Amino acid sequence: MPSLSGYKSELDYSYAPGIFPSMECLLARPELTRRLLLHSSAAGREGTEKLISLARERGIRTEEADRVLARISGKENCYAAAVFEKFRDRLDPEKPQVVLHQPGDSGNVGTILRTALGLGVEDIALIRPCADLFDPRTVRASMGSLFRLRVKVYDSFEEYEAEMGERQLYPFMLDASVPLAEAMKEPPPRRRTLIFGNEGRGLPPEFAKKGQPVRIPSNDKVDSLNLAIAAGIGLYAFLDKEQAGA
Amino acid sequence: MPSLSGYKSELDYSYAPGIFPSMECLLARPELTRRLLLHSSAAGREGTEKLISLARERGIRTEEADRVLARISGKENCYAAAVFEKFRDRLDPEKPQVVLHQPGDSGNVGTILRTALGLGVEDIALIRPCADLFDPRTVRASMGSLFRLRVKVYDSFEEYEAEMGERQLYPFMLDASVPLAEAMKEPPPRRRTLIFGNEGRGLPPEFAKKGQPVRIPSNDKVDSLNLAIAAGIGLYAFLDKEQAGA
Repeated sequence: MPSLSGYKSELDYSYAPGIFPSMECLLARPELTRRLLLHSSAAGREGTEKLISLARERGIRTEEADRVLARISGKENCYAAAVFEKFRDRLDPEKPQVVLHQPGDSGNVGTILRTALGLGVEDIALIRPCADLFDPRTVRASMGSLFRLRVKVYDSFEEYEAEMGERQLYPFMLDASVPLAEAMKEPPPRRRTLIFGNEGRGLPPEFAKKGQPVRIPSNDKVDSLNLAIAAGIGLYAFLDKEQAGA
Repeated sequence: MPSLSGYKSELDYSYAPGIFPSMECLLARPELTRRLLLHSSAAGREGTEKLISLARERGIRTEEADRVLARISGKENCYAAAVFEKFRDRLDPEKPQVVLHQPGDSGNVGTILRTALGLGVEDIALIRPCADLFDPRTVRASMGSLFRLRVKVYDSFEEYEAEMGERQLYPFMLDASVPLAEAMKEPPPRRRTLIFGNEGRGLPPEFAKKGQPVRIPSNDKVDSLNLAIAAGIGLYAFLDKEQAGA
C-alpha cells in the first residue's frame, strides 16, 4: 500500500482523497469539513467545478495544495481532498447494525462501509484494536460512504453490548454449525447485529456462545473468504430475507 | 499499489508471492512450477519447511533470492515465491462459469478467483482488455486459488460464446429490471454463466439483450457496489439456490 505520510492517526482531522469522496464529505458532513484541497491541474475536470461551487455555497475554504495531495494519496492523480474533523456518532439501537471485530485492513473496512450503505445497514461499530476508521485509505475505499453512516469505535465488544442493549447477534464464524441460509429461515429481528472477525484470526471462540453463529457455506479448497466478501454476502443474505418477508 | 518491477506481462512466466500462494502453486500445478525462491530469513518460519520439503519431493529447485522477492512484492516481508509458467486451460462447458468482462484491477480479479473457488465455480473466463491474470498482485489476491481453477483469457465475448455454445447467461447490470432474488426463483441450469463488467463502466448496454440480466438490489446512496463484492453476492445467490433446490 502507498505510504500516506501526510496523515497521522493521532490527529483530530483527516482527509477524504478524491473528487467523489470529497463531494460526499461536503454533502453529508459540511459542518465537519474544514477545507477543500485542490490540485493545480484540477480546474475544468469533471466534478471539480461542482465540488468548488458546493464548497463556496457552504462557506468552505478551498486552497491549492499539490504537495499535500501527493503525500496523502498513493494514487498518481489525486485532484481533490476534503479535510474533515474526525467524528464519533451515536448508533441507532433500533436499526440493524454491523460490528467489525478487530479488522486489520483499512481497505477492507472501507469496502465494507460502502457495501453496508448500499445494502441499507447504516450503523457500524468497530472494536479495537482495529484499522483506523479515518485513515485516508479507509475513506477512499469507502468511496466517501463513511460520511453517510453512523460509525463508532469501541474499546471492547462488551462496551458495545452494554451500550446497545438486548439484540439478536449473528457472529459469522467458519466453524459455526448453522449455514447462513438456514439461519435466515426465521425472519431476523430488526434489532440485529452481524458480527465479522479479523482477516486472519476470525472471531474469538467465545463468540460461538453469542446469539446465532452462522457460517457462509464454502468448500475447503480455500482457506476462507476475503473479509469484505464475507461481509457483503452476509449483508445481502439478511437484506434479501427482509425484502422477501416484507 | 506497490510497484512490481520484477514482473513483466510479456514474459511467459510469473511469480506466486507468499508462502500460501507458493504452496498452492506447487500442489496444484507442479508441472508448471520452475523454481521456488526463498528469502534468506525464511528458514524456520511457519510453512517454509513444509514448502521446501514439498519442492524437494516434486524435484523443484529452490534458491535464495532476496532481491527478486523484494522486487516482485510490495509487501515488506515476502518469504517465498514460486516461479511458474503461464497457462491457458480449456473451460468445462458443462459447469457453471464466471465471465469477467474487461476488469481493470488485478486485486479485484484475484479476490473474485478466490471467492469463485470457495463457492464452487471453477471455470473462469476473462475478456480483453483486462487486468493481467498472471500479475503477481492477482496471484496474491487470489491466495493461490488461480492454480486450482480452469482459467482462460479471450479476445472478445463473442469468442467465448462461440467456444462455449448454448448457455444461460446472467449479465449483472445496475439497470437490469430483474432483481437477483427474483431471477433465482427458477432454478438456474447447470450450464450457466454469471457475467460481471468493468469496475467503472459496468457491462456495455448490448448485454441487456443477452440471457437474463440481473441486478443486485442496492439503494441509491452509493454509486455501485465494489466489483468483487458484487461478484461475491452473485456467486453466493446462485450457490444458495442450487443447494436449496438440490
